[in-house]
This record gives sequence, C-alpha cells and structure tokens, in this order.
Amino acid sequence: MALLSEQGTEIVIPVCAVIGIIFSLVQWYIVSKVKVSPERSGAAASPAANNGKNGGYNDYLIEEEDGIDDQNVVAKCAEIQNAISEGATSFLYTEYQYVGIFMIAFAILIFLFLGSVEGFSTKNQPCTYNKETLCKPALATAVFSTASFLLGAVTSVISGFLGMKIATYANARTTLEARKGVGKAFIVAFRSGAVMGFLLAANGLLVLYITINLFKIYYGDDWEGLFEAITGYGLGGSSMALFGRVGGGIYTKAADVGADLVGKVERNIPEDDPRNPAVIADNVGDNVGDIAGMGSDLFGSYAESSCAALVVASISSFGLTHDFTAMCYPLLISSMGILVCLITTLFATDFFEIKAVKEIEPALKKQLIISTVLMTVGVAIVTWTCLPSSFTIFNFGAQKVVKNWELFLCVCVGLWAGLIIGFVTEYYTSNAYSPVQDVADSCRTGAATNVIFGLALGYKSVIIPIFAIAVSIFVSFTFAAMYGIAVAALGMLSTIATGLAIDAYGPISDNAGGIAEMAGMSHRIRERTDALDAAGNTTAAIGKGFAIGSAALVSLALFGAFVSRAEIKTVDVLTPKVFIGLIVGAMLPYWFSAMTMKSVGSAALKMVEEVRRQFNTIPGIMEGTAKPDYARCVKISTDASIKEMIPPGCLVMLTPLIVGTFFGVETLAGVLAGALVSGVQVAISASNTGGAWDNAKKYIEAGASEHARTLGPKGSEPHKAAVIGDTIGDPLKDTSGPSLNILIKLMAVESLVFAPFFATHGGLLFKLF
Amino acid sequence: MALLSEQGTEIVIPVCAVIGIIFSLVQWYIVSKVKVSPERSGAAASPAANNGKNGGYNDYLIEEEDGIDDQNVVAKCAEIQNAISEGATSFLYTEYQYVGIFMIAFAILIFLFLGSVEGFSTKNQPCTYNKETLCKPALATAVFSTASFLLGAVTSVISGFLGMKIATYANARTTLEARKGVGKAFIVAFRSGAVMGFLLAANGLLVLYITINLFKIYYGDDWEGLFEAITGYGLGGSSMALFGRVGGGIYTKAADVGADLVGKVERNIPEDDPRNPAVIADNVGDNVGDIAGMGSDLFGSYAESSCAALVVASISSFGLTHDFTAMCYPLLISSMGILVCLITTLFATDFFEIKAVKEIEPALKKQLIISTVLMTVGVAIVTWTCLPSSFTIFNFGAQKVVKNWELFLCVCVGLWAGLIIGFVTEYYTSNAYSPVQDVADSCRTGAATNVIFGLALGYKSVIIPIFAIAVSIFVSFTFAAMYGIAVAALGMLSTIATGLAIDAYGPISDNAGGIAEMAGMSHRIRERTDALDAAGNTTAAIGKGFAIGSAALVSLALFGAFVSRAEIKTVDVLTPKVFIGLIVGAMLPYWFSAMTMKSVGSAALKMVEEVRRQFNTIPGIMEGTAKPDYARCVKISTDASIKEMIPPGCLVMLTPLIVGTFFGVETLAGVLAGALVSGVQVAISASNTGGAWDNAKKYIEAGASEHARTLGPKGSEPHKAAVIGDTIGDPLKDTSGPSLNILIKLMAVESLVFAPFFATHGGLLFKLF
Repeated sequence: MALLSEQGTEIVIPVCAVIGIIFSLVQWYIVSKVKVSPERSGAAASPAANNGKNGGYNDYLIEEEDGIDDQNVVAKCAEIQNAISEGATSFLYTEYQYVGIFMIAFAILIFLFLGSVEGFSTKNQPCTYNKETLCKPALATAVFSTASFLLGAVTSVISGFLGMKIATYANARTTLEARKGVGKAFIVAFRSGAVMGFLLAANGLLVLYITINLFKIYYGDDWEGLFEAITGYGLGGSSMALFGRVGGGIYTKAADVGADLVGKVERNIPEDDPRNPAVIADNVGDNVGDIAGMGSDLFGSYAESSCAALVVASISSFGLTHDFTAMCYPLLISSMGILVCLITTLFATDFFEIKAVKEIEPALKKQLIISTVLMTVGVAIVTWTCLPSSFTIFNFGAQKVVKNWELFLCVCVGLWAGLIIGFVTEYYTSNAYSPVQDVADSCRTGAATNVIFGLALGYKSVIIPIFAIAVSIFVSFTFAAMYGIAVAALGMLSTIATGLAIDAYGPISDNAGGIAEMAGMSHRIRERTDALDAAGNTTAAIGKGFAIGSAALVSLALFGAFVSRAEIKTVDVLTPKVFIGLIVGAMLPYWFSAMTMKSVGSAALKMVEEVRRQFNTIPGIMEGTAKPDYARCVKISTDASIKEMIPPGCLVMLTPLIVGTFFGVETLAGVLAGALVSGVQVAISASNTGGAWDNAKKYIEAGASEHARTLGPKGSEPHKAAVIGDTIGDPLKDTSGPSLNILIKLMAVESLVFAPFFATHGGLLFKLF
Repeated sequence: MALLSEQGTEIVIPVCAVIGIIFSLVQWYIVSKVKVSPERSGAAASPAANNGKNGGYNDYLIEEEDGIDDQNVVAKCAEIQNAISEGATSFLYTEYQYVGIFMIAFAILIFLFLGSVEGFSTKNQPCTYNKETLCKPALATAVFSTASFLLGAVTSVISGFLGMKIATYANARTTLEARKGVGKAFIVAFRSGAVMGFLLAANGLLVLYITINLFKIYYGDDWEGLFEAITGYGLGGSSMALFGRVGGGIYTKAADVGADLVGKVERNIPEDDPRNPAVIADNVGDNVGDIAGMGSDLFGSYAESSCAALVVASISSFGLTHDFTAMCYPLLISSMGILVCLITTLFATDFFEIKAVKEIEPALKKQLIISTVLMTVGVAIVTWTCLPSSFTIFNFGAQKVVKNWELFLCVCVGLWAGLIIGFVTEYYTSNAYSPVQDVADSCRTGAATNVIFGLALGYKSVIIPIFAIAVSIFVSFTFAAMYGIAVAALGMLSTIATGLAIDAYGPISDNAGGIAEMAGMSHRIRERTDALDAAGNTTAAIGKGFAIGSAALVSLALFGAFVSRAEIKTVDVLTPKVFIGLIVGAMLPYWFSAMTMKSVGSAALKMVEEVRRQFNTIPGIMEGTAKPDYARCVKISTDASIKEMIPPGCLVMLTPLIVGTFFGVETLAGVLAGALVSGVQVAISASNTGGAWDNAKKYIEAGASEHARTLGPKGSEPHKAAVIGDTIGDPLKDTSGPSLNILIKLMAVESLVFAPFFATHGGLLFKLF
C-alpha cells in the first residue's frame, strides 16, 4: 500500500488548496499597495520607490522615473480603470444572465436524460462494470450529475469573474508603476497574473475535493456511481467556458478590429487613443475575452482532466479495493502543482529582479522551465508516496497491470510535452526568431504576401506540437491506457497556476499600455508598457499552445472514458457508422470557425459604422475637445457577442446529443475522434498565425534591428500591410482558435456524461431502419 | 449470369474508348477551322460568319462584329499564342525530365520492395485470400506492378501534355472568335475543353483495358495477382499528377502573384498588359497548372478508382468465378460515361446556342445536370446488363451478399453527390449569390475584413459537401462495403469527360482574355472574354469540388483495399498505434500546405523583384516603346517550381513508405484515415475561399448590379482590398487546395501497392522494442 494514509490524503489536499488561496491573497495585497487614489499615491509610492529598490546597488539599471508626481495622471488612470472595470462587469453580468438561463435548461435536460436511463426508478441497479454488486440507481446519478454540473458552472463563473476583477484592478496600477521603471511594472502585472492563477487552481481543486466528499456521504462504497456523477463538474466548467470564450472572444475582437479599422487605418491615430470611441470597449474586451475566457477555459481543462482520471480510476483496482489515496492521485498531483508553482513564482517576484526590457521574456520563459523541472520532482514524490507499486487499470474490457514508475512517466511525458509545445509556440510567434521576421519581411510586397506567409507559418507550426502530442499519447496509452492519457493531461496542466500567471500578465500589460495612452502619459511610459505587452503577446500564444495541447489530451482521455462507459469495445474506422462520424467530426471545427469568424466580422462592421458615425457627427472629437460616446460602443460589442455566441454554442452543445440519440455511440465516438484530430490542427495553426502577425507588426513598429528599421516606421507601406495581417489574425487567435479547444473537450465530456443514456436509448435512426 | 457476354465486353469497352477519341478529334478539327494565320483568316472566317449563323433568325442576338478584318491583330495573336505554347512546352519538358528521373528511381524501389516480399523467389505461392490455390510469385507482382506504374505515369504525362497542347492551340482562336460574338467564342473554348476531356477519359480507359488484357496473358486465371499488379497504374498516374499539380501550381501562382503585385498594385496597369514582363509566364502558368495539372489529377482519380474497384472485385465472387463481364463493371461504367458525355456535349455545341453573356453560366450548369440525369439511366443499363442479380463481396474477412440494384444505388449516390458538391461549390463561389456578394461587401472596410469573411466562407462551404460525402459513404459502404465506395467514386467520375470540358474551358477563356489584351484588341473584345472567364472561374471551382469529392471516395476505397490486402481486420481508434497515426495523418495536409504556400510566396517574391528590376532598368517599358524580357520571368517560374515541388513531393511519397516500414500497417491505416478526413476539409475550404475572393473582385470590377457599383470601380479602395484577397486566394485555390486531393489519394494508392511488403516486413520499430 501507499505511504500516505487515507487520513493524510484528506488533510493534504485541502491544505495545499488553502495555501494556494492564501498565497494569491498575499500577492493581491502586495499589488493593492500601489495606490490609484491621487491624494496618497504620489506621497506613498514615490518615497517608497526612492527608499527601497532605487536606493540600492542597482540604481543605474532602473530607468529614470517619469512624471511620478503628476496627480492629474493618477486621477485619470483611476477614472479609466473604473470605466474598464464597469464595462467588463456589466458585460459579464449580462453574459451570465443569458448563460444562466441556458445552464438551468441544460441542467434539467441532464436530469431528464440521465433519469430516464432506468425509467426514473429509485431502486439500486447492478453496477456497469461489476454486475455482481449493486450500485445506486440511475436517478441518483441524474440528481448528482445535475448538481455537480451546476457546481462546475458556478466555479467556472467565479474563476473567470475573479480573474477579470483582479486584472481590471491591476491594469492602472501597472501603468502607474511603469513611471518608476519597467521592472516595477512587470512585477505588478505578473503578481496580478499570479493572483488569478493561484485562485483558480486552488479554487478548482478545493471545490472538487469538497464535492467528492459530500457526494461520498450518499454514495458510500459505490465509487463507480460517485465518480460518474462527478463528471458533471467537468461538463459544467466547460460549458461555461465555451460561452465565456466565444462571447468574450467575439466581444474583444469586434471592439479591437472595429477600433483599429477606423482609428489606425482611416484616421491614422495611434492605438488606444482616447479620441477613438471604441477604445474603452477594446480594453474591456481584453479583460472579458483574454482573462475571463481564458480562465474559464483552463479551469474547464483542469476540471475535465481530473474528472476523466477519476472516472477511469474508479473502475480500476483503486476503485474496486477502495484505496482512497491512490484514487485521489489526480488531486494530489494538482496539490503538488500548487506548491511547485508557488516556489516558481517567487523566482520571478522575489529571487530575481527584472532590470531591463530584454530580461522580461527570458524571465517568463524561465518560469516555464523552473516549474516543469520542479514539477518533475514533485510528481515523483507524489507517485512514490501515494501509489501502490503496481495496480490494474480497466482497458476497454481488458485489465492492464500498471507499475507506479510507468504512471510517473505518463505524467512526466505530458508535463514535458507541454513545455515543448510552449517553446515551439514561442519560436513561431516571437519576433526574436526567423519565422516572424520572415513574415515581417514579406510585408515589403504588401498585405497579400504577408497573409500567405502568415498562413504558411501557422500551418507549419502544427508539426512539432502534433508529434509531441502523438508521442505523449503513445507513451501514456501504452503504459496505462486511458488512465495514462488522463494523467498525462493532468501533468501538462499541473503547472496551471504558473501558466495562467504568465498568460494573464499579457492582457494586463496590454491594458496598462492602453491606460497610459488614454491618460496622456509620456511617450517613454508607453514604450515601457509596449515592451511588457510584446512579451505578453508571446506568452499569450504559449498559454494558448498549452491550452490546446492539454485539450487534446483531455478530450482523448474523456473519449476513452466515454467509450468505456458506453461499453464500446472497438471504434473501428472500417465500419460506415464510425467513418461517417469521423469525417463529419473533422468538419465541425470548420463549421464552428466559420460561425465565430463571421460573427467577429459582422460585429466589427457594426462597430466600424458606429465609430465612423461618431467621428463624422460629433464635432471636435478629432481635436480632443469633445468626448466620444464610449458607452455606445461598449453596448454594440455586448449585444453582438451575446447574440452571436448562441449559434456556435448550440452547435457544440447539441451535436453530441443529436448524434448520440439518433446515430448511437459508435458514430458519436467517430465524431469525437474526428473533431479532436482535426480541431487540434485548426486551433494551433489559427492561434500561431494570429500571434505571428501581431508580433510581426510589433517587430516593424519597435524597429529594434537593422532589418526591422528598413520595414518601418509606423505608417510605412510594409507597416500598413502588417496592420492588415494583425487585424485578420485577431479573430483567428482570440476567437476561433482558442474556442476550438473547448469544442473538442466539451463534446467529449458531454458524451461522457450522457453515455448511460446513449448506451441505453441511443441510435434511434439505426434502430428504426 | 449477365446479359452481356465476355466477348461482348471485350468489344464494347475498346469501341466506346475509340468513339471517345474520334469524337475528340472531330471537335479538334472544328476548332482548327478557326485560322490564326493572317492571310486567310479574314477571308475565311468573316464570310462564314455572315453566311452562317449571322444570316439567320437570331441576327439581333449576336453581338456586333468587331475589328474582324484587322490582319495585324491576327498576326499578333498568333505570335502571342506561339510564345505561350513554347513556354508551356519548354516547362513541361523540363518538369518531365526531373520527374522522369524520379519515376525511374521509384520504379526501381517498387520492384525491390515488392520483389523482396518473398525474397525474389520465382516459385508460385499460395494466394492471399484463398490459401488453397496457387498464385503467381511476388516477383511477378513486382515486375508487373513496376510496368503498370510506368504505364500509368506515361499515360498521365500524355493526358496532361495533350491537354496543354489543345489549350494553347485554342486560346488565340477563342480570342479571334470573340470578335464575332460571345457565343462563337464560347463554343470554341468549350469544344477545346471537350477535346481534352474526351481524349483523357478515352485514353485512360483504353490503356487500362489493353494493360489488363496483356497482363492476363501471363496471369491467366490468377486474377488476384493480375489486379494487384494493375494498381501500379493508379500509383503511376497519381505520382505524376502530384508533381504536375504542385509544380504547375507553383509555376502559375508565382507568375500570377508576381505579375499582379507589381503590375496591378504598384504600376496600376491592367491585368495581362503586354508591358508587364511576367505576363507571358502568367499565361503559360494557366496552361501548365490549371490544364496539365488538372488533367493529370483527374486522370489519376479515374485510374485509381478503377483500380480500387478492380482489386476489390478480384477477391469477390466475380474474381473467384472468373466472370469477366461483371469484373469489368468499373470499365463498363466508364465506357457508358463516354457515350453519355458525348450526347451531353452536343447539347452545348449543337442543340442549343449561346446568344448572350448571361446564358453562359446556365449552359455550363446544364451540362452537369444533363450528364448526371443521362448517366443515371446509363448506369442502370450497365448494371442490369452486366451484373448477375446477386453476388458476394469480400468485406474485411467476412463475405457480404450484394444485389445488383444495391450496386446501382452505390454508383448513383456517388454520381448525384458529385452534382450536389458541384452546385454547393457554385453557390459559394459564384458572384450571382449572396456569399460572394457579402465578401465583396466586406471590402468596404478594407482587406482585413475581406480576408476574415473569405476565410469564414471557405470554412462554411465544407458543411454540405461533407454531409454529401458522408451520406455517399454510408449508403455505398452499407450496401457493398469497400466495393460500394469504389463504384461510388467511379459514379462521381463517370461524367469526367464533361467535367473536364467545363473545367478546361476556364483557363482557355482566361488565356483568350490575356491574348486580347496583349494583342491590343478593343475594349469590347476584352469584355466578352472577361464574361467567358468569370463563368470559367466558377466552373473551375466546381471542377475542383468534383476532384476533391471524388478524391475522398477514391482514397477511402483504396484505403479499404489496402486494409484488405494488408489483412488488417479492424482499424481501432482505441489502440495507440492507430490513434497516433490518425492525429499525425490529420497534420499532414497542414505540413504540405505550409510547404506549397511558402513556395508560392517565395517564388512570387523573386518574380516581384525581377519585374520591378525590369520596370526600373529597361527604359521605355512603361511607354510601350521597349519590349520587356519575358523569357527571364518564364525562367524564374520554371526554376522555382521545379526546385520547390521536390520537398512536398517527397513528403507525400515517403510518408507511407516510412510509416509502413517502421510503424507498420495499423499506424499507416491511421495516417491514411487521418489525412483523408482532415485533408478533405482543408482542400474544400482552400479552393472555395480562393474562388470566392477571385469572383468578389470580378463582381466589383464588372459592376453589374447597383450594389457592385457602390463598391467599384477598378482602383477604388474596396477594389484594392478585393485584389489583395484575390492574390491571397491564388495559392490557396490553385496550389495548396487542389494538391491536397492528390496527397490523400496518392498516399492511399501507394500504401495499397506496397501493402504486401508492409504486411510482411513492416513495423520494424515495434518489432525491435
């Protein structure tokens, strides 16, 4: 048996979660010390800076302070921050209202579908995998699945909302700190990212842990039923994430594209210029799309991979022998992840200090490497203290003996594959390397070659990540079947707190730059925030790479769990049912992308018309003497995104239900596999293409090298071509691409939750004919 | 038994093929009556026109004749035609030299791999499917496969080359006829297309038929070995097509993009202006890419689907009972196809007459409908005269009884699915419908929204074709397993002669327009050729839709044949070997597209530099007093395409060999399935996006509607945005997209040919570990 006792497990998991929450509160407290109320800020921040870091040995490295005593600027920052925060809050409330209705309807659907499996009988039934013992009735699974679905949805809402709150809390503070130097600003932005990362990871873990313990009161020794009901948590988290990503993604890009098309292209005013009526909507968008959406997304991945691992484990020897510690292996890995990320964060915030612009990106990359190395040790500790040296896993009807070192390798292969995907993404999207520079260079001959090169770059960037995913799948599948895949996904997500910190850092810096511009701060401050933002673009792409890689593994694990639960022995491509599923499934990412891209396009057109109208009808707007009507643009983005998120949402949520009910589980398995293998490619290429175009534009704008200067400056023909590429990339990298993760995960987890129904009543069409 | 005797079959097939060849020669003779030698043309053509059509009842409908007596123009046309023809011939010779070396090397490889299956033994071996009888040795299969591979390659070369020859023969003639009216010009272009279509269909059938009969002399009753060896014919045809498509695609788009970027965008001179140094290269490109490449591609599809059907049939009851007529069912379908297409062609050339511009597109669409309706009757005739009322088919280890009416439905579902795909493609790419008009409208806000809408349109356009393919697969698979799929593919390709005629019509009209411009003919002539060309753009897109749809069915049929031959019982997605194959296979179309897009981009950049250099260094070029150096541009395109076609060619040709040898047949099956389901989507969306952008531009240029006029005229901001979209679409629709058909087909047929080797010696890596 394992070294860690059941009581030990019961203590270790919540303790780690609480440590994570406390750590994030400490970070939040440190951020809050930067004051945005004008009265005290000048007095408080400025001396602190002088007495503290600035008085020490590294005086010469900190950039000169700039405009630190201008109280007007502070007041203006506070005002803009409030406007952004209000816009974001109001959008999220509206979104949650609509999604709330949907969630309740879907919860009822879950209850009805799952309850009908045994005709709403309240009698105990023979278990699915072990027919000799009795399990709780299907009605109980229906009730508890519905409850865990709602819990998952609520936790996801909280994760996204808190992330948005801290991000809008931190953006103006980052701007203000940028007056003292790039290092200070970096730390504020990064700490705020960490608040979100730790809150989300710890919160997700804690809620899941409590839910399991509460459900156990009813289920007792029926772990099969218990963990089947728990999968609702993953479904709830992911459904919420779908709307968050799609709605937020449409919001942010409609505003961004609209603002850019009129402001930058037609009126030739800089990005984030306060004269642009869509500028507040644009900044709100960063928070609701890139922060709240991303938070919900990664929370969903985390919840789903945990659920997938748990449901597979519950029918393995852990479940049969009721070895609670080993059963909780997925949660223990996540607990260890929180501790590892905590130490990793200290490397960025306390052990080292950023002293120059060029140190930002390496510091962020070091975070990835440090967390991965430490986590490898952490996984080893967890594996050897919590797992028996050998155990059996259910493998599509057969049993498979797994050694603990094999499972260790499964987790590690996921963890390191994540790192590789991260670095490949960086290589293809950072303007420090030749791919983006080539794209920038192609702007010489205009927008068309820029787009051709950018698309080719995106296509090319899928090669190594796919091989990394394939190797992970092969290794983990071979060692421990679907359980191996599930823990590999968990391994990739174990450093989620650090990943999210890095990720959230990007939009916060982006907003900080926007606020600096709008508050009329000096050019030098804007340069500093731009440097932060450029690094943030790359890390955002890395975060998306992680999200996609983990989504692939998670959905494969869920797929495996679904197949087990639906009692399918093989998913044979050579049967027509499966093959048509496969080809139609592979089409879904295209259908979905068509919807989301078109939505962004249409919403952006409306935004363009409104911005143009304001420029044309409000006198004095270009001179800065009259204030544009920001609220109308915010409303356009809100309305458009709420309206447009429904069709793609329905496509994803209804497909498994329709296919499962009418065509049965084999075709559904084909659809899931097809959507997975095709969606991963579309998602990776879309997000890298977009990231590359964005940074190609920044490369020309920054003019840091001889080559870049031949293409610039801002306003030159190559720069105009680069701006067109950047605008095209916006919906690709921030709406369609990242939403596809959720498409593949969500369809898989939904199939898993509804598997008992499909297995009993599904395939109506084939039954009829 | 069937109504048609074996002797009857032996006569019917070659007779139909010969009828096809004679018909194409007649069409060619009619085209040749348009004279391009100045002395006689004015005298011969003009009175004929006056006495003939122009003297009848429809006088008022024929457009006024224009510049019909200008002998200078005729001379100039002849000169340009010669230049284009010489450029195309010289490129194809160069291409064939390189490809010839490759073909010989690959032929040796085939011989060595297949010969080694039984260690180059010359003794007869037990058959694969019927172990009790003796079959010819593997060495014989190696020899005959190699021979049929070379035959297929040569036939493909001839098909492409003849197509190019007739196209370059017809382009100037179409221009000259355009002086007499749009109807006359249409008929010349369409007849020339028909020459190519019929030559190709009849030639492919005849060579295949002769090969089978020759091989039968050696193989005798060993039909299993005979038709296994015949699959080499498909492989040869498709390998050649790969290089033709990729090389030709890079050639044409490098020239096109290069010419447009400098000529239209920078120098503001019209398309096909003789002052543009890349103009001849651009026109050569249409012939080597869209004509020769397309010809080879469809010939490949045709050869492969015939081979797939034959190889599956050879192990069915037809093969076992040696029922030659039933065995030749695929060839009889193609024979009937030639007769049906012949009648269909008469509807366009003789039964009706085009009298106005707006009748062109309906006339072409009617061709599709007429051929499909007639062919449905034709298939019924062939089915009930050639097939026994019931027979058994080999279905992955099991036997399946098939009724003849079931097989009739299989062929028809393919045939009609092709028509649906054609019409959906037309809907999404013709500027008569809202999708393209929406894309044109989005040009209002610039190139970025144009690209976003265009990409969304392409993604959306995959939905219905995929459902059509899925339904075809389901129906034909359910009725007659892999044989059903193969004959469904044949059904889709049975009207290939008409399809190719329509398809070749496009580039011929395009060239005709180019010649009109270069020969300095009046604006009205150019308008007529433009109208022909716009219809040609849509039909080219329809042709690509057909090519992709049939490629999907063909490769699935080949996949099935491969799986049977490699004796795999199931291709289970739930095994790691298959799943990694699936995900890596789904990645291949992206890798391939990245290569081809980048190739076009790089070659176009070189072309841009050369064109700019000539504009800057040759004095008087813009004034038309000095002649640009056309030959240098032709050389740049030639060199670039020869060099750049090698890496993507190797990717496609080597992947099955590497995967099969090192990872074994299961992983290879996964790769094929993955590449198929993912490649179809990429191919359809790429080719429709490109087609839509092209026609959105044409929509603005033509200004035929109120809406279009608000976006135009040429040179307006929306038009500039549309030109950018068109340029991006060029490599998508003419290089990457269509090449993907070949990727999926070729990998499948190659796996089939090498299946005996993989099944015996493959999977080295897994054997080692």
